[in-house]
Amino acid sequence: MTNGMNSNGRYEDRLDRVVEELCHPSSYETVFQRASHDVPMPSIEALGEIVELLRAVLFPGYYGQSDLTPGTMRYYLGSTIDRIFSQVTEQINRGLCFSCDDPGTVDCGVCELRAHEIAMGLLSGLPAIRRVLTTDVQAAFEGDPAAKSYGETIYCYPSIRAVTNFRIAHELYRLGAPLIPRIISEMAHSETGIDIHPGARIGGRFFIDHGTGTVVGETCVIGENVRIYQGVTLGAKSFPLDEQGRPMKGIPRHPVVEDDVIIYSGATILGRVTIGRGSEIGGNVWLTHDVPPQSRVYQGRAEEHRFTDGEGI
Amino acid sequence: MTNGMNSNGRYEDRLDRVVEELCHPSSYETVFQRASHDVPMPSIEALGEIVELLRAVLFPGYYGQSDLTPGTMRYYLGSTIDRIFSQVTEQINRGLCFSCDDPGTVDCGVCELRAHEIAMGLLSGLPAIRRVLTTDVQAAFEGDPAAKSYGETIYCYPSIRAVTNFRIAHELYRLGAPLIPRIISEMAHSETGIDIHPGARIGGRFFIDHGTGTVVGETCVIGENVRIYQGVTLGAKSFPLDEQGRPMKGIPRHPVVEDDVIIYSGATILGRVTIGRGSEIGGNVWLTHDVPPQSRVYQGRAEEHRFTDGEGI
Amino acid sequence: MTNGMNSNGRYEDRLDRVVEELCHPSSYETVFQRASHDVPMPSIEALGEIVELLRAVLFPGYYGQSDLTPGTMRYYLGSTIDRIFSQVTEQINRGLCFSCDDPGTVDCGVCELRAHEIAMGLLSGLPAIRRVLTTDVQAAFEGDPAAKSYGETIYCYPSIRAVTNFRIAHELYRLGAPLIPRIISEMAHSETGIDIHPGARIGGRFFIDHGTGTVVGETCVIGENVRIYQGVTLGAKSFPLDEQGRPMKGIPRHPVVEDDVIIYSGATILGRVTIGRGSEIGGNVWLTHDVPPQSRVYQGRAEEHRFTDGEGI
Amino acid sequence: MTNGMNSNGRYEDRLDRVVEELCHPSSYETVFQRASHDVPMPSIEALGEIVELLRAVLFPGYYGQSDLTPGTMRYYLGSTIDRIFSQVTEQINRGLCFSCDDPGTVDCGVCELRAHEIAMGLLSGLPAIRRVLTTDVQAAFEGDPAAKSYGETIYCYPSIRAVTNFRIAHELYRLGAPLIPRIISEMAHSETGIDIHPGARIGGRFFIDHGTGTVVGETCVIGENVRIYQGVTLGAKSFPLDEQGRPMKGIPRHPVVEDDVIIYSGATILGRVTIGRGSEIGGNVWLTHDVPPQSRVYQGRAEEHRFTDGEGI
Amino acid sequence: MTNGMNSNGRYEDRLDRVVEELCHPSSYETVFQRASHDVPMPSIEALGEIVELLRAVLFPGYYGQSDLTPGTMRYYLGSTIDRIFSQVTEQINRGLCFSCDDPGTVDCGVCELRAHEIAMGLLSGLPAIRRVLTTDVQAAFEGDPAAKSYGETIYCYPSIRAVTNFRIAHELYRLGAPLIPRIISEMAHSETGIDIHPGARIGGRFFIDHGTGTVVGETCVIGENVRIYQGVTLGAKSFPLDEQGRPMKGIPRHPVVEDDVIIYSGATILGRVTIGRGSEIGGNVWLTHDVPPQSRVYQGRAEEHRFTDGEGI
Amino acid sequence: MTNGMNSNGRYEDRLDRVVEELCHPSSYETVFQRASHDVPMPSIEALGEIVELLRAVLFPGYYGQSDLTPGTMRYYLGSTIDRIFSQVTEQINRGLCFSCDDPGTVDCGVCELRAHEIAMGLLSGLPAIRRVLTTDVQAAFEGDPAAKSYGETIYCYPSIRAVTNFRIAHELYRLGAPLIPRIISEMAHSETGIDIHPGARIGGRFFIDHGTGTVVGETCVIGENVRIYQGVTLGAKSFPLDEQGRPMKGIPRHPVVEDDVIIYSGATILGRVTIGRGSEIGGNVWLTHDVPPQSRVYQGRAEEHRFTDGEGI
Repeated sequence: MTNGMNSNGRYEDRLDRVVEELCHPSSYETVFQRASHDVPMPSIEALGEIVELLRAVLFPGYYGQSDLTPGTMRYYLGSTIDRIFSQVTEQINRGLCFSCDDPGTVDCGVCELRAHEIAMGLLSGLPAIRRVLTTDVQAAFEGDPAAKSYGETIYCYPSIRAVTNFRIAHELYRLGAPLIPRIISEMAHSETGIDIHPGARIGGRFFIDHGTGTVVGETCVIGENVRIYQGVTLGAKSFPLDEQGRPMKGIPRHPVVEDDVIIYSGATILGRVTIGRGSEIGGNVWLTHDVPPQSRVYQGRAEEHRFTDGEGI
Repeated sequence: MTNGMNSNGRYEDRLDRVVEELCHPSSYETVFQRASHDVPMPSIEALGEIVELLRAVLFPGYYGQSDLTPGTMRYYLGSTIDRIFSQVTEQINRGLCFSCDDPGTVDCGVCELRAHEIAMGLLSGLPAIRRVLTTDVQAAFEGDPAAKSYGETIYCYPSIRAVTNFRIAHELYRLGAPLIPRIISEMAHSETGIDIHPGARIGGRFFIDHGTGTVVGETCVIGENVRIYQGVTLGAKSFPLDEQGRPMKGIPRHPVVEDDVIIYSGATILGRVTIGRGSEIGGNVWLTHDVPPQSRVYQGRAEEHRFTDGEGI
Repeated sequence: MTNGMNSNGRYEDRLDRVVEELCHPSSYETVFQRASHDVPMPSIEALGEIVELLRAVLFPGYYGQSDLTPGTMRYYLGSTIDRIFSQVTEQINRGLCFSCDDPGTVDCGVCELRAHEIAMGLLSGLPAIRRVLTTDVQAAFEGDPAAKSYGETIYCYPSIRAVTNFRIAHELYRLGAPLIPRIISEMAHSETGIDIHPGARIGGRFFIDHGTGTVVGETCVIGENVRIYQGVTLGAKSFPLDEQGRPMKGIPRHPVVEDDVIIYSGATILGRVTIGRGSEIGGNVWLTHDVPPQSRVYQGRAEEHRFTDGEGI
Repeated sequence: MTNGMNSNGRYEDRLDRVVEELCHPSSYETVFQRASHDVPMPSIEALGEIVELLRAVLFPGYYGQSDLTPGTMRYYLGSTIDRIFSQVTEQINRGLCFSCDDPGTVDCGVCELRAHEIAMGLLSGLPAIRRVLTTDVQAAFEGDPAAKSYGETIYCYPSIRAVTNFRIAHELYRLGAPLIPRIISEMAHSETGIDIHPGARIGGRFFIDHGTGTVVGETCVIGENVRIYQGVTLGAKSFPLDEQGRPMKGIPRHPVVEDDVIIYSGATILGRVTIGRGSEIGGNVWLTHDVPPQSRVYQGRAEEHRFTDGEGI
Repeated sequence: MTNGMNSNGRYEDRLDRVVEELCHPSSYETVFQRASHDVPMPSIEALGEIVELLRAVLFPGYYGQSDLTPGTMRYYLGSTIDRIFSQVTEQINRGLCFSCDDPGTVDCGVCELRAHEIAMGLLSGLPAIRRVLTTDVQAAFEGDPAAKSYGETIYCYPSIRAVTNFRIAHELYRLGAPLIPRIISEMAHSETGIDIHPGARIGGRFFIDHGTGTVVGETCVIGENVRIYQGVTLGAKSFPLDEQGRPMKGIPRHPVVEDDVIIYSGATILGRVTIGRGSEIGGNVWLTHDVPPQSRVYQGRAEEHRFTDGEGI
Repeated sequence: MTNGMNSNGRYEDRLDRVVEELCHPSSYETVFQRASHDVPMPSIEALGEIVELLRAVLFPGYYGQSDLTPGTMRYYLGSTIDRIFSQVTEQINRGLCFSCDDPGTVDCGVCELRAHEIAMGLLSGLPAIRRVLTTDVQAAFEGDPAAKSYGETIYCYPSIRAVTNFRIAHELYRLGAPLIPRIISEMAHSETGIDIHPGARIGGRFFIDHGTGTVVGETCVIGENVRIYQGVTLGAKSFPLDEQGRPMKGIPRHPVVEDDVIIYSGATILGRVTIGRGSEIGGNVWLTHDVPPQSRVYQGRAEEHRFTDGEGI
């Protein structure tokens, strides 16, 4: 570059070179999403709106239109569910397309039909989802002395927000929708810090107090009336690899938590272990083996000193 | 259903049935919020705006109008506080209505007056809130070697953001506003992962570094110059139940932390225990008993092995 | 105040007095940001948009325009990078001004030039940033049995989101931009709960699973192929103070983590200690000393009881 | 002011003085709206939304949700009308309050009840409004050779947009709502250039082609099947004054246009004159007297010259 | 209805009845748009965005990104045109579907292909559209003594805005796109009051000063260098009807205006008449016959009186 | 191009060629705005916001905050004017830069200072602008029998909206701001159809009823208490050209309208003629000569026929 070149020229030069480099296939091959079948990516914004519409259906009056009455509820629920149906069908189809192994030759009509069927399944599942969420609301109210009313838990508690997303995402996961359930659970994760994989199976009356940092893994099985606190991990230990050295997918590798268990904050439970019915797991425990029913597990006593001996930790 | 029915008809049929089911009182009784006294739900969006306006009043130039000067400050603070006053009065009134036990017959004028009085109290408390936040800013700057200036802590630190919300929420809690303080603290919880119940009493020079997952319970009492790290729980242990088997509300059940204490990341302290002045609590400790002043508490030494013996955890 | 004064008058009176108090220099001196050189505060909104544009450049098709092709990519990348360049130059200049020690007399042209040079550096660094992020994507896919495709990790995983922000922020930090890197990393912290200081040095194939509550401190050095779980702290212990009793800035005070290390959830590692190559650190461990290569460290066995002996924790 | 005063000081000084001047009652007495009964001004934004919701009810599928079907229509219309009802009740009440002569002592419950009754009237009138708009659509299609379908006139023609606003505004005017009808007709005026006063009485099959600049005055009476072009004025001539020299309100002072009349662009017809059934009024005519049925009225022949005689007009 | 029925019940009753009535096919048959082939209505919002993108392509730097340079222009124009292409293809397809006579059985692939071809045609026509708009800009500058620069006419003049929309709409009309051209010209009509039908044929150097109320009909033919003022109508007189009594579509029925003509404000010219080259038509003239080249036509002298004889008009 | 090329390839090919063509200097030279001095174009959006803020200052309670009181007005007016001041200074500077003849070498500090001085002038002029607008409001109320209150004219009448924009724009024009006044008057033109050039000089008590299509030219001089109706043109006739054949700028070429004149709809008055005090000009008149005081001018009687003689116009 000659001295005479001005600053603007230098910039445009550099811009051209960077663009050149970034547009070389060797640069982008792994990180470029080429739209398949002209179907765009699932829209996180649209899925956010769908989940809010579902909240309005599941908890009428708390979300969505706030002044509906038993006499007008039918109109609101009907129109809202109809909007959900067409929007979620579209997004499920995008998710199928995103996960399509053969972007060249496949008959897209099959995926469109499958998306329609999955959305029909979600629609039919709404009453049952509301039923189990009702028990979650009761558990939240009864499990937290600071709660003043059912309404407060519905409107303010991160647990209800995250568990609602989970129960929707789980239904879609169960019906076979790829990617979409994951996005829905990540939304809750981002808002609440609670990370429940859509594949987990969780019974009624489930409550996570505070919840930030709590993780529930893909193959967890959780019974009825389980209460968990913030920072609890129900995770996997090491996992078997396949011939290519990649982790084998779909093998049960997360804990089974039976009915009426309480797990305090920061406990880490890893692997396909079973926490027996009615047990209490203390905070900050590291646990990688089975625990029989009615157990109490807690961390050994910490070391304690007076401060005369130095400047602190 | 006959074979001749087309897919659209099947859908509409199913929609009608799901709506029917969801509109049955047995389905919605627990999860339906019927507006009482024609007053809508508190608006989370409006409360978010109110808190941002309060930030602009408490930290002028950092939030809100960025080019105000000592000579124009009066106009901005006056108009902003006036907007806050009318908006927060409205939201407090909604919160009172939400919590009203007798939606049928009560005289709403009483609640409107009470909302007005609480908002007046918040208004009057603003100078004191700014005074204590000033000490929090100083503590954040002095407590983090990575901090470059007071301004950086005000503008970027989750601790200042969460503690500002807390100090506003606590003032409203103290003045008797229901629900609204909780929503304000949940906003900070969602943004920062720091969950401080509005009922906690916290002295000046309070700093939470990083903060994700830290929980401060409703009846905590925290002294001056306390520093806490991420993932710390100041929570309740088991709690007494009333005759209906529901947790009794309002009983002191969270720790008392005296002046000059430091609590490292992931420590879990449960129950009405006292952490004596000047103590340091190490990371990941599980602590459910009193600790005298100037204590140092830390987890026992972990087990360590070389990796020759297997494939890992 | 006389009895005859009506409620509105009382309010206006009180408003005037509160404004008076808040406009007294003694009230605002620490918490008021006076714009220096007529340059406004860095805009968090603008920086959010810049980061999203960068994501669109680094992961084309996943973010930004979803239907670009190899044939049209050049146009999109060129125009997007040009927008990034002018916007980020502006924000870097604001950050320099925010951090300016001498708001009265300094020649602002110097800062404008420096902002331009830093932005040029970021521009030139984009291909390298994409290269290392490509290895992070591969590590995420290989490190999580629940991952279905590279695309899913790019689009849904908080780790990729947080690490992308980190790699951008680190480049700006390295080039000498004040404040802006911090804001960019706090955005990721708020969205994902993952708090990586822009000053940390982190090798390729880095993966944080779940991630909520994980903290990586300013002077951390992390090797290649390191996997970390949620709630892990790589932090500082106590730190030396300068003559004014303020923490000394810029001293290495965080861990060194060598290649191929795995750290499980909730582990707390504090101080300038070295975790040797290939080690595994178990969950909830509190670790403040060096660990040789190939170590396995885990918490001692917890105490366990049956529930016959009382009502629980 | 001394020489030493800097530019900022001069500005703040001037600002203070201008504020002082503008806050003197003598400056603002005529142009200051003091909220009466704590009821805010009618919201132009809310009224815009109400009118769009009404369009969605009157022309389903063209406006609002585009994919509703006969099977789901009921849900959409029910919920939309319910939202309209509560929003328009609120706005009508604000309009009543805006027009209240006695802001001090009046019982506001009376106005709230009246707003409710007016909104009920609008609700009941919707089927009839749709019936007459259907004839307007047919007239637009038949009156313009450029129209391709009913749908095109509904979706694209300013006439249908303006006449829809008019028919809604007229219903509210008829029911006694102050101010609101005027705002609704001004919205159409701003969008289309067609200014129809809500007080006019207009029969079915009404069509205004192009329409910009057309004015229909408050006391106009227009029959069935009338077609008007752009720039037509149906206005008032001079009007009688009352004792204070103010124009007397409410006296018939605009034209009566009988059935089947066509009025071409730019015609100005002033005063309480009657244009007899089946007449055609040519463009740019100035008409201030009655015209019998079946008349043809047009401007006298213009003067024409060749251009040899000078440089033009 | 019994006396005991409360006000809410009365309302819900009425709501149900109105919904019933509006959902009866006899009520909605003419005014209900049933989506054909699951393709939604053309989106006025999307078309507004497309036109703004086209403005950014045609007048770079004035619209869209304001700081592009000759060195970066290629990136912006390329990416913007690519976005236009995919968006306009979608909207053209919606327009074809809207106009489809056989919503039941038609092969939609044909329309999609046609939409693609029309969009390709628009793309190819952009350089020519810019060429002719360049002459329009020059004519506006030269035709208005108040214009200060070419830039001012591009950025501020309603004529340029409306003529840009027209030239885009005309290209789409020429290529056979239904409905979409009309929507684009109605946008300009609403913003500027200038109503040019997309079917008109208009030469270069075309300028409409002020423009409000000016109408140019579907079959107009306008030569080079024509200047028109506000309120001018180039319209149709009576038009022949077909056997069903509907106006026959597509017959030449609007004026031919030859090169170098000026038409002053408010002139009304109706029917397939020819205004000869170089003529000037005065304001407010009503003209329904041919005029030879170089003519000057103006209204006869008005009647004038002094005011002694009464109170005015 | 070979047959084997697929549709996508053809498209990208065509895109590349069109971009090439549009990026050739010969294509863009007239229509490309190259940012001068790195100062962006005036922002129409920002100017729209400025005008709305000015409306809130001029008509407090009608626009902006609706519940301000005499006791809080000072805060709102002060902060609003301060925001206006800094925003309008920025926009005036952009306008100066847009109009700068020498984008290469000029000292931009001069323009920044000039922008500051013009903004100071606008600030100081606000009380006088409000004074004259107060008389305009009174004239609107007294001039329209349909007006119910001063408030209705302030809030709903296009005349007040357009004249407010005019009086602001005129002040900026008088102070020497280029371009910005024009943009402000075009905003009103687009919203109301009233096109008043900022250069016109207009006395108090000015009222334009309905207003669509009314044009007031740059060098018009209008006295006190003038009332004008829709579609009136106060324009220029032919205008002298300079040596390059371009219209000479700045010569008085529009009418002088003396006090107490009324001009009815559609009248066209062209050239530097004087309409004497107290005259009335009838609708649709074409007037290009002086008229003495107290004149009545109206169009000659139109021709009238019965309809027996044919099918109409």
